[in-house]
Amino acid sequence: MSSVQEVNPRVRVIRDPVNLQSLAAQISQQIAQGEQKAFTKVIDLSSCDPHRTGLPPISFVRQVLSLCCYPELLKEDSFPLDVKQKTQKLLEACNGGSIGSYSSSTVGLPPIQRSVAEFLTRRDGGINSNPEDIIFSSGSQKTLAMMIHLLSREDGQTETGVLAPLPCPHTLPMLLDEVGVKLVPYRLTEERGWAVDLEELHRVLMTARRQCDPRAIYVGNPGNPTGHVQDRETIEKMIHFAASERLVLLVEEVYQDSVFGQDKEFLSYKKVLFEMGVSYSETVEMVSFHSISTATMGECGLRGGYMELINLDPAVKKILFQYPSSASILPQLAIEIMVNPPAPGDASYEKYTQEILVRAETLSQNAGRACKLLNALPGMSCQPAMGGVFLYPHLHLPAEIIEEAKMLRLSADVLYCRRLLEEEGICLGPGCENGHIDENFHIRLCVLAPPAVLEDVLTRLCSFHHRLLSGPD
Amino acid sequence: MSSVQEVNPRVRVIRDPVNLQSLAAQISQQIAQGEQKAFTKVIDLSSCDPHRTGLPPISFVRQVLSLCCYPELLKEDSFPLDVKQKTQKLLEACNGGSIGSYSSSTVGLPPIQRSVAEFLTRRDGGINSNPEDIIFSSGSQKTLAMMIHLLSREDGQTETGVLAPLPCPHTLPMLLDEVGVKLVPYRLTEERGWAVDLEELHRVLMTARRQCDPRAIYVGNPGNPTGHVQDRETIEKMIHFAASERLVLLVEEVYQDSVFGQDKEFLSYKKVLFEMGVSYSETVEMVSFHSISTATMGECGLRGGYMELINLDPAVKKILFQYPSSASILPQLAIEIMVNPPAPGDASYEKYTQEILVRAETLSQNAGRACKLLNALPGMSCQPAMGGVFLYPHLHLPAEIIEEAKMLRLSADVLYCRRLLEEEGICLGPGCENGHIDENFHIRLCVLAPPAVLEDVLTRLCSFHHRLLSGPD
Repeated sequence: MSSVQEVNPRVRVIRDPVNLQSLAAQISQQIAQGEQKAFTKVIDLSSCDPHRTGLPPISFVRQVLSLCCYPELLKEDSFPLDVKQKTQKLLEACNGGSIGSYSSSTVGLPPIQRSVAEFLTRRDGGINSNPEDIIFSSGSQKTLAMMIHLLSREDGQTETGVLAPLPCPHTLPMLLDEVGVKLVPYRLTEERGWAVDLEELHRVLMTARRQCDPRAIYVGNPGNPTGHVQDRETIEKMIHFAASERLVLLVEEVYQDSVFGQDKEFLSYKKVLFEMGVSYSETVEMVSFHSISTATMGECGLRGGYMELINLDPAVKKILFQYPSSASILPQLAIEIMVNPPAPGDASYEKYTQEILVRAETLSQNAGRACKLLNALPGMSCQPAMGGVFLYPHLHLPAEIIEEAKMLRLSADVLYCRRLLEEEGICLGPGCENGHIDENFHIRLCVLAPPAVLEDVLTRLCSFHHRLLSGPD
Repeated sequence: MSSVQEVNPRVRVIRDPVNLQSLAAQISQQIAQGEQKAFTKVIDLSSCDPHRTGLPPISFVRQVLSLCCYPELLKEDSFPLDVKQKTQKLLEACNGGSIGSYSSSTVGLPPIQRSVAEFLTRRDGGINSNPEDIIFSSGSQKTLAMMIHLLSREDGQTETGVLAPLPCPHTLPMLLDEVGVKLVPYRLTEERGWAVDLEELHRVLMTARRQCDPRAIYVGNPGNPTGHVQDRETIEKMIHFAASERLVLLVEEVYQDSVFGQDKEFLSYKKVLFEMGVSYSETVEMVSFHSISTATMGECGLRGGYMELINLDPAVKKILFQYPSSASILPQLAIEIMVNPPAPGDASYEKYTQEILVRAETLSQNAGRACKLLNALPGMSCQPAMGGVFLYPHLHLPAEIIEEAKMLRLSADVLYCRRLLEEEGICLGPGCENGHIDENFHIRLCVLAPPAVLEDVLTRLCSFHHRLLSGPD
């Protein structure tokens, strides 16, 4: 393997990321080495990583994990009773009562599977969830990759395709590259708050069938990076489309606890599916993904997620269970806490509820405040987010900037983000990472951060934007 | 995907594991439901999972992880000073000072990369290790799979091959299946304590080249499941072989801290490589794997490991860094503790050293005791282990048992393990999982367990074995 030419061609074609992160790291290092800049710190809001920008973790989660790591602390008086009880319950779920043991099953600890299934049954008003259909992994992206890998035919002839929205999560194109599956984009309608256009879906699928074998459709609800929240009618139409076209529905519902748009609510695809009657609920193949990296928990560093399998063939499920891996223990325990938090009457209930509430309010107020400010900028328009953690404003850039980008062989959104990073120390995501590779320029901004941090980012962004549009002095 | 026929053929062919684990789980459940058995508990020593059988974790590791999860505890007096200092140092390495943030790089936290590189430089007597060559993942098996995936040509024509010892770790065949790479076995010499036979290596490679494209050779030192520890001469020959045949050396050195055979010591492949002179040290492509799941730490449930890349092309490394994943934080912190433990003078030094010593003595005494007992059994012969955590005795079974197994369409080692599990509640690993698929029957036994647990297992194993050999009443 003396050169890149000898590397697995599938891995070789993984898209070169725009890699603003390495530029950000480089600038941070320059600051650390005493170099003078117009700013003292780089702030990265290109992805959702709330603890990094200073949002505190949920105390109850961390207290329990802390005790699970070192159960000697159970003997001390410094923790609330329900923290100790939860710790004991979780340790009982671990083999040998220790977080240091493997999961007995490749997919997770059975008592945690049961907790998640109970949560899902409650969430969906009694629609049954089967513990054996819950599979844990190191994050929703890993379970998604696992499913897409399973779907890929890899027969060396017809390429497998997955329909995905445009814009899509910025992690999705690389994930599909890695498993060698073609991304078939269906364009969302920006002016309708990034709603799905069913006609577009049909059109795209027809065209795609001439080039590849589309086997699944990916949906994010609430949308990433759009902040769109689907209503029942849309979900029904999506399910109907998947059913009639025999596509597996891959539904990322990681922001299910982060819907804040007025009169909006989160409806799970599974609930709608089961309310459409047995001709759907017993046939449509669906997988729903959730994670602890998301809005409420924000535990990105723990790397934990799960998927629920619906209507998958038992023999297909058996193959999933044979995947040679053993899920990490602590993230499973954190998931259990997320789906089964302190209840009224528990010692930690009030503090927990308060912390969750503050988090939700911060998110909703940040999203509103940022959207208003961005829409007030010339050459920028932003659809309000109804849920999720991102804003995805449209950039209407002057022709000379687009020309300059072309000369530099950069996409204009990348040039915009690079300059913003170099001049103001703010790292946002260029829309090309979300699939917008034509001249339809956008930027991606996570709004889940401490309000003061977001305010700082917005001030520096506005100042940069005005400077850019007013042209060279 | 209404049937298995529509699943990715590569995933479909992943070997069906013998699945004694699911039988073990079934039996445990029967006991829990009150069913009467000759035993009250199933004990599984088919793989290394020491905390599960009751070996305690290393206190310092867990104290630090506990504080990292809930840094509020830093304010309390209940922890030794060095535990608090280590916690502070590790949290400083995390983005935003929190274990809840992503690694900034896909491969790990830079300060932890530096700690590991410093450890490797110390370990190898000053041979330089570069922090940027250290890549973290959720365990050595994951980094190994990553490397093999990279090596696989996947051009739909010639299959890629990896040479691996027979017997090999029981996790390796499935791992190679998953990435679609052919396992090319080279037979170790049992009567010489499972030493490598260089002539066999050449022979196997020549034959393999007619069927596939062998691109790498996998080595385990100390060996899994053989317990063999390679001497300098063998390592030099292996490196010479890999160099002359242009194979990438994939070296699993996860038991580097667990060598106990008289006059045996662990020598890293990297040290030997660099002492062979620049014609080797600047050309041979080598990757070494380590893990926190192994003997000393035994932190299997945390899922953490790293690899060091040696002489890989910078462009190839760049591709590895683009893998769309972010390493989990807590296992990286545990790795830092493993490579950088309390030093003389630190408050926890004595306790830490004592715990490590007890662990090492338990392992060595268990291995000796078990080997002696197994060799005293009729129809069983066991090479003594010099390191690692397994014994791998040979079964010389009576013809009628082999016949019976054939009638049941089972391998006789599987029949042996199934009966042992059903009759005595002891789960060991059949040698077919380690690649012994001919009539060369073995069983695999992890000896890293509390001495009383091991004694119980050996007593029940001996009783079963005698009963089996004496035939039906």
